[in-house]
Amino acid sequence: MANFDLTQIPHLEECGMLHGAFDAEALVKNSNTLREREILHNKIVPSLEDAVLRAGLKDGMTISFHHHFRNGDYIVNMVLDRLAQMGYRDLVLAASSLSECHGPLVRHIRSGVIRRIETSGLRGELADAVSHGVMECPVVFRSHGGRAYAIETEELPIDVAFLGAPSCDAYGNANGYSRDEKDGLACGSMGYAKCDAQYAKHTIILTDHIVAYPNAPFGIPESEVDYIVQVDKIGDPQGIMSGATRFTQNPKELLIAETAARVIEASGRFKDGFSLQTGTGGASLAVTRFLREMMLRDRITASFALGGITGSMVELHEEGLIKKLLDVQSFDLRAAESLKNNRFHQQISASYYASPFNEGAAVNQLDVVVLSALEVDCDYNVNVLTGSDGVIRGAIGGHPDTAYGASVSIVVCPLIRGRIPCVVDRVETVVTPGRIVDVLVTDRGIAVNPRNPDLAEMMKDAGLPVCSIEELRDRAERIVGRPDPICYTDKVVGIVTYRDGSVIDVIRQVAEDA
Amino acid sequence: MANFDLTQIPHLEECGMLHGAFDAEALVKNSNTLREREILHNKIVPSLEDAVLRAGLKDGMTISFHHHFRNGDYIVNMVLDRLAQMGYRDLVLAASSLSECHGPLVRHIRSGVIRRIETSGLRGELADAVSHGVMECPVVFRSHGGRAYAIETEELPIDVAFLGAPSCDAYGNANGYSRDEKDGLACGSMGYAKCDAQYAKHTIILTDHIVAYPNAPFGIPESEVDYIVQVDKIGDPQGIMSGATRFTQNPKELLIAETAARVIEASGRFKDGFSLQTGTGGASLAVTRFLREMMLRDRITASFALGGITGSMVELHEEGLIKKLLDVQSFDLRAAESLKNNRFHQQISASYYASPFNEGAAVNQLDVVVLSALEVDCDYNVNVLTGSDGVIRGAIGGHPDTAYGASVSIVVCPLIRGRIPCVVDRVETVVTPGRIVDVLVTDRGIAVNPRNPDLAEMMKDAGLPVCSIEELRDRAERIVGRPDPICYTDKVVGIVTYRDGSVIDVIRQVAEDA
Repeated sequence: MANFDLTQIPHLEECGMLHGAFDAEALVKNSNTLREREILHNKIVPSLEDAVLRAGLKDGMTISFHHHFRNGDYIVNMVLDRLAQMGYRDLVLAASSLSECHGPLVRHIRSGVIRRIETSGLRGELADAVSHGVMECPVVFRSHGGRAYAIETEELPIDVAFLGAPSCDAYGNANGYSRDEKDGLACGSMGYAKCDAQYAKHTIILTDHIVAYPNAPFGIPESEVDYIVQVDKIGDPQGIMSGATRFTQNPKELLIAETAARVIEASGRFKDGFSLQTGTGGASLAVTRFLREMMLRDRITASFALGGITGSMVELHEEGLIKKLLDVQSFDLRAAESLKNNRFHQQISASYYASPFNEGAAVNQLDVVVLSALEVDCDYNVNVLTGSDGVIRGAIGGHPDTAYGASVSIVVCPLIRGRIPCVVDRVETVVTPGRIVDVLVTDRGIAVNPRNPDLAEMMKDAGLPVCSIEELRDRAERIVGRPDPICYTDKVVGIVTYRDGSVIDVIRQVAEDA
Repeated sequence: MANFDLTQIPHLEECGMLHGAFDAEALVKNSNTLREREILHNKIVPSLEDAVLRAGLKDGMTISFHHHFRNGDYIVNMVLDRLAQMGYRDLVLAASSLSECHGPLVRHIRSGVIRRIETSGLRGELADAVSHGVMECPVVFRSHGGRAYAIETEELPIDVAFLGAPSCDAYGNANGYSRDEKDGLACGSMGYAKCDAQYAKHTIILTDHIVAYPNAPFGIPESEVDYIVQVDKIGDPQGIMSGATRFTQNPKELLIAETAARVIEASGRFKDGFSLQTGTGGASLAVTRFLREMMLRDRITASFALGGITGSMVELHEEGLIKKLLDVQSFDLRAAESLKNNRFHQQISASYYASPFNEGAAVNQLDVVVLSALEVDCDYNVNVLTGSDGVIRGAIGGHPDTAYGASVSIVVCPLIRGRIPCVVDRVETVVTPGRIVDVLVTDRGIAVNPRNPDLAEMMKDAGLPVCSIEELRDRAERIVGRPDPICYTDKVVGIVTYRDGSVIDVIRQVAEDA
């Protein structure tokens, strides 16, 4: 353009002008390259195969998925089926979690399409196959915060993210609901998918619903999306809203929930402006119901509720009892609707939610969290991953993230399930270490971690049925006896990581005769 | 915890479990480190000095600022004064832009506190001093999109970002308005600051208004904020809302605005669902007024308006004439209020707005943009940086970003200003290259870039006063003559980059007798 020679200018290198001298031709070429990009502004490609090829997927690479569609997800199976047809092998499947509906993946493991899996949890046929040794490489289990951290630090680098979205415009702004179709499939928050979109080398959105530009507010911004594939169906609405989030009528669970609410009241944290999270599972979810009564009675409002947001949380929010909702995952349709319509129901990313080493995650601001468990042991270690037969049947979720972050972490669990004791000497699998668990609430008494003698006193003063955890274990044993030890082989099928990525436990293959 | 030896597990390295064998002690230590972080959960530090020391700022490092407070900004001067007192030297000051109010920086340049400056623009005393050679290193000028790109690619790495915010909670969720204080200072969108917070090694928020946690919705998330400093005043509300965004009563500007609206109508882009951006400057802003009449007349609505959002855009939005507002910078209080209250008025980052090489910026979706100019030349090159005396007096802003992205880029400019011709043979400084400019609208006729013969035909068919740009230049010269050339020294005081970081022009020191 103008007449000048950059090489004659001192200090240019200091200015970071390292691409050196001005070159009119280069500028025009850059411009042409930019112009060429315009033909890609509409990012919708004709097929999934096309998107995969454009993204440059190669054997051995890491592909990622979110689990916002829970047990109604069609995306993971759909993509793996296609990748198998295309002849891919040795892929690392990094999902934020996997459900019962992902049984068909077993075939792709056996055939070598999937070499390794990273996930928060496994259930059903896939979990069963993994527990019985179908994979050569152990599955790596991470908490939601741990996964965000691993992605951010490139301990878990993602090559191609395949992200299902209930709405997306032609340029890639995607969200967990659609405003065009009142009855369209909705998952609400896209919180877990946000990290994938931000850090993946290539991001592909799969959607059944292309909407007008700009699809704002957006869960995932166009600036992080490479390709869009339109598909008939991304998931089953029934499956998306079912599963772990049912509302209990079970009297034992209601008793536990009511006791947990009383524990919160007695903990000194039940004050105006307090903050809370409740995990999945009947008793945990039902706590909200009892808290509501207490909040109305004492005219106490919460500053925010965090995490997986449920319809009952939304009711409290709309009643003015909870000021704000920070939503990394909407657990039901009511929550998804609220995210769409309530200004202070905010979509947050998994990193914002729970990453242990960003500049500050929301879990650190929790006063109380109520979390379910499959088993708790006398050191307060919690197992939410493996069943009493040693087979994988759960997910870490945000369990250790919130147990760590909350001032008071309350684990709720029946003393026994059927003929199975839930308070034991030693959990089969340590997921959340006992040192970050404060109180265990069962239907036959509560126990307070001896690391918190003050808290134990507060519970006793409130007239709560406090006993030692050993007493709870003994009560369980008196009722159902001590189960025979599970038989395992030496093979490690699962590695359980703590939120910082360190290995906290391993899961072994169950013996065939077990 | 459990009894296992990781070194015995095959495939562990493949799993990325490179931190090796499980070590219970290490786990506890990790935990302690995490626990230690809890004491920092309240990120408010006692003083700016304290924040600077904690952030580890060293001589020669790069510090960054946003310009959302425009000419009312107190932050840049406040921080540099303190850094000077602390004895810092050789700093690189990377602001998204600088204004008249930043004249006091000249002192810090002379004393060696500031070695180099990156910015979108300079005005007033600081611009004057730079143009007269006060700095050894040339100032690097970047467009808003170009700056986002430079930050994303680490061509411009930021060590410490100092970001003023009208509200912030104790954990770092910051925003451009406050909901607690109706009359508090507000700047609306924090769009330019978002990139700084995301990529800076350390981010410090300076605020006059600490609010309850969580300050959601947030412009800047807690997960990207290290320290918070509470200060008396972050800016002057008068200065924030003044300046480039006044609404014109000038008949010449209104004529230009009306003609520009007719150009849009004639361009074939004025259809239901079209998209638009108007830059700063009287004529450019006034276009909205004329567009509104046309939209009501033809029952046409726009899908979105982009960029610096003004009160007049908000009026059209609230009337239902513009469906969504994508706001990287709120130009007035009306816009800031709307961002706070209107669900479809969305805060976007500078990268989302205009970065040339992310996966897709919003500027690429623009149908029309109307942009001001100081000078335009016969190759349609536009100068928005230097005045007729060769002295810096403007800012690149999103000029080349939107001119590139929009299908039709319209530059508006009076033919002459006082005794100065605005259409010239050769602009003093090339900021936006002519090849991405489509139409020039003046008060004495319009010219269409010969690269767009079809567009020229459409303008003629619509009865618009089309002529060649050389005719416009000749008309200007006939009225005011051809000014004497500006006298420069050989010293380069400014480097003008195109949005991809390549050098498109340089600015030289004006001779002392000029």
